[in-house]
Amino acid sequence: MKKALLFSGVFLSGALVGAIAMWFKAVVPAGQGAEMIYASGVEEMARTATMIRQNKHQELLTNIDLTLPQLVEATHSFGDREHSRWALWKVKEYYQTCGVPVPAEISSILASLPPKPPKPPSSCELRRQVETNAVGTNDITTKNP
Amino acid sequence: MKKALLFSGVFLSGALVGAIAMWFKAVVPAGQGAEMIYASGVEEMARTATMIRQNKHQELLTNIDLTLPQLVEATHSFGDREHSRWALWKVKEYYQTCGVPVPAEISSILASLPPKPPKPPSSCELRRQVETNAVGTNDITTKNP
Repeated sequence: MKKALLFSGVFLSGALVGAIAMWFKAVVPAGQGAEMIYASGVEEMARTATMIRQNKHQELLTNIDLTLPQLVEATHSFGDREHSRWALWKVKEYYQTCGVPVPAEISSILASLPPKPPKPPSSCELRRQVETNAVGTNDITTKNP
Repeated sequence: MKKALLFSGVFLSGALVGAIAMWFKAVVPAGQGAEMIYASGVEEMARTATMIRQNKHQELLTNIDLTLPQLVEATHSFGDREHSRWALWKVKEYYQTCGVPVPAEISSILASLPPKPPKPPSSCELRRQVETNAVGTNDITTKNP
């Protein structure tokens, strides 16, 4: 009994040390990586606003057109995840609706995307649906002022 | 001796279990979080390009102006990190160079930023500096064709 307790204690100490090591070795850097990507997105947004105000939006567009293929390749490399797919659908839509030819290096990535499902309704749209149903089924709520 | 080996074995198994548990509990979600932020940045870029091509850049600017304060507050909440500071400096510069009044809710955040240091030279600029120094100090490289 005493031995079993001792073993459990040693095992749990090991588990704690392993978890703490993993925390500092991988969780903290991963979290900081996410913050870095977020911060660079904010920087990018300030840059976009500056360029539009300085009437340089055509230059901005040229930069985006040049960068987009690399970003698509990076996003594709994450694997077939939901968030990657939504980003790639948006890029595909951009090329389609604006009549911009798809760059050769990413044409196979965009062509292999599954068809885009209808976007799930937002919380606002859901609320409106519920309200509409309530109006239809419950006469009390349809009274006019 | 045998007992010590046994204890080490139990401790190491515990460490392994702790590290694996932390991996699935925190590292994988943190990594996916980073990928999600990256993907939404790519989506945002495709949206920006679409809006510029559709001549809706003023609408885009209005959206950015409305969103920027929230993004600044989120970036500030990460703490005083280098990447946060560069993002906030860029936002501050946007308001200053474009003569846009700083929104009240973030004025204290931007006012408390330390002064921006000169940006470290890029790898390209560093190479050019090295080349210039080489030209200055070594006559063999300065010969004219």
